Amino acid sequence: MTIDPLIESISVNKIFGGWHKQYSHHSKTVNANMRFAIFLPPQANNGKKVPVLYWLSGLTCTDENFMQKAGALRIAAELGIAIVSPDTSPRGEEVADDNSYDLGQGAGFYLNASQAPWSRHYQMYDYVVKELPAIIEATFPVSDKRAISGHSMGGHGALTIGLLNAERYRSMSAFSPICNPIKVPWGKKAFSAYLGKDQASWYQHDASELMRIAKQFIPAKVDQGGADDFLKEQLKPETLEAAAKMSGYPLELTIHEGYDHSYYFISSFIEAHLRFHAEHLER
Amino acid sequence: MTIDPLIESISVNKIFGGWHKQYSHHSKTVNANMRFAIFLPPQANNGKKVPVLYWLSGLTCTDENFMQKAGALRIAAELGIAIVSPDTSPRGEEVADDNSYDLGQGAGFYLNASQAPWSRHYQMYDYVVKELPAIIEATFPVSDKRAISGHSMGGHGALTIGLLNAERYRSMSAFSPICNPIKVPWGKKAFSAYLGKDQASWYQHDASELMRIAKQFIPAKVDQGGADDFLKEQLKPETLEAAAKMSGYPLELTIHEGYDHSYYFISSFIEAHLRFHAEHLER
Repeated sequence: MTIDPLIESISVNKIFGGWHKQYSHHSKTVNANMRFAIFLPPQANNGKKVPVLYWLSGLTCTDENFMQKAGALRIAAELGIAIVSPDTSPRGEEVADDNSYDLGQGAGFYLNASQAPWSRHYQMYDYVVKELPAIIEATFPVSDKRAISGHSMGGHGALTIGLLNAERYRSMSAFSPICNPIKVPWGKKAFSAYLGKDQASWYQHDASELMRIAKQFIPAKVDQGGADDFLKEQLKPETLEAAAKMSGYPLELTIHEGYDHSYYFISSFIEAHLRFHAEHLER
Repeated sequence: MTIDPLIESISVNKIFGGWHKQYSHHSKTVNANMRFAIFLPPQANNGKKVPVLYWLSGLTCTDENFMQKAGALRIAAELGIAIVSPDTSPRGEEVADDNSYDLGQGAGFYLNASQAPWSRHYQMYDYVVKELPAIIEATFPVSDKRAISGHSMGGHGALTIGLLNAERYRSMSAFSPICNPIKVPWGKKAFSAYLGKDQASWYQHDASELMRIAKQFIPAKVDQGGADDFLKEQLKPETLEAAAKMSGYPLELTIHEGYDHSYYFISSFIEAHLRFHAEHLER
């Protein structure tokens, strides 16, 4: 892959002795501009290469939600981990869209669309797995030690990408992931549009289906709020847990009573996720 | 003061074992609806009375910015401190407004306006000092141990309110406060509109003027980013420091190199502020 060196700085903020930076760049993969944010911990200030956690956000989010609301950067600064947060889809007037919040811009579902009009720009799987890490590793003082995490639609993204690329990530985790998209309204709507009616191609983007037949394992941690309004209809962590039992997958899944689907939940448990990833990134 | 018991719940979220709650209520003081958020730490879950930190936000903010972006609730949960964050002004169609971001709705400046059309609703000083604490203390399991803090316009609010009400607050702190509003563009514009051209009434809303002649002291902590775009023209911490020297005021003021005016700065140092307040609230 050729790396386009023209990444444009949008903002720079000092935080916890490190730096939060936002960039825009033309992505060849999605054939449009993409925005991402990176946190570089103080350990990287003198050019030392640090490992990277990729964070995939949920429906309607941008690169900003996690960086501003999760309270993660304090811990990443302590542990010496960079965090990269891409936008959830390409955006712009030329990019296909839909009036609903769960399809089109802000709802890329971290897959490669095969159906018109989506296939022209919605190639978020290749963007997150290939182009973005190549740019990050060529541009910033980071190593090729990677972990991946995300929330809701981004939890689905983190788990499916981790399961399909066990050799590229040391560990994976998710908050409130869509565990079985081929069976729930959010997933059926998005996969029908992006991948078409033939469900054969849907299975490789379903964390439960992938975990059930997995042969290569990486450590996996999932946290879910027990008072999440989307728990029963959209998320289905019990399906993921059953799949892990089938394959013997090393999954730590915890339901937290009283917590909902928001960043108030994520912020309460992000420290445990970062420490989990640090343990595997240090090896 | 009679307390209106009709406060309406807007949202409830569990976070760090405690609860973040938003409310709307009709304020008799500002003669309009006001919104506020409260964080109740886990120590309050069984009705134990906890002390309260009042947080005053900056221009354009609502009750949400601090609660979502500062990373404060983790530490407040550990220390057993409630946090109350009011909106920065009354809002609504009936409330006077201005097209600029630094006057009118979202820019109440924590004073009692004497000039039309502002005086009808912009009574934020009395709201924050009297009505809001009375409602909080009558409604939630909190004690009358209070501290006050804020950012930018809210830092101005916290310092002026703390200086004028030393008997009501155990401690005060601020991030990037407008330290000398009578001398800077933000302050001159707001005070001219709300208080009128006669500058005699301006002095009691200027932290530097109040600190210079203060006789009753409460511990005060101020942090300021050295790379803050507003530092020289609008904030003037050097004036506050000089005032503290004049009166012998117990002010800890620190300039942090490289940090700007954003919540990335606040989140980096909020833990130290909460521990500072906890020390004085525990007495």
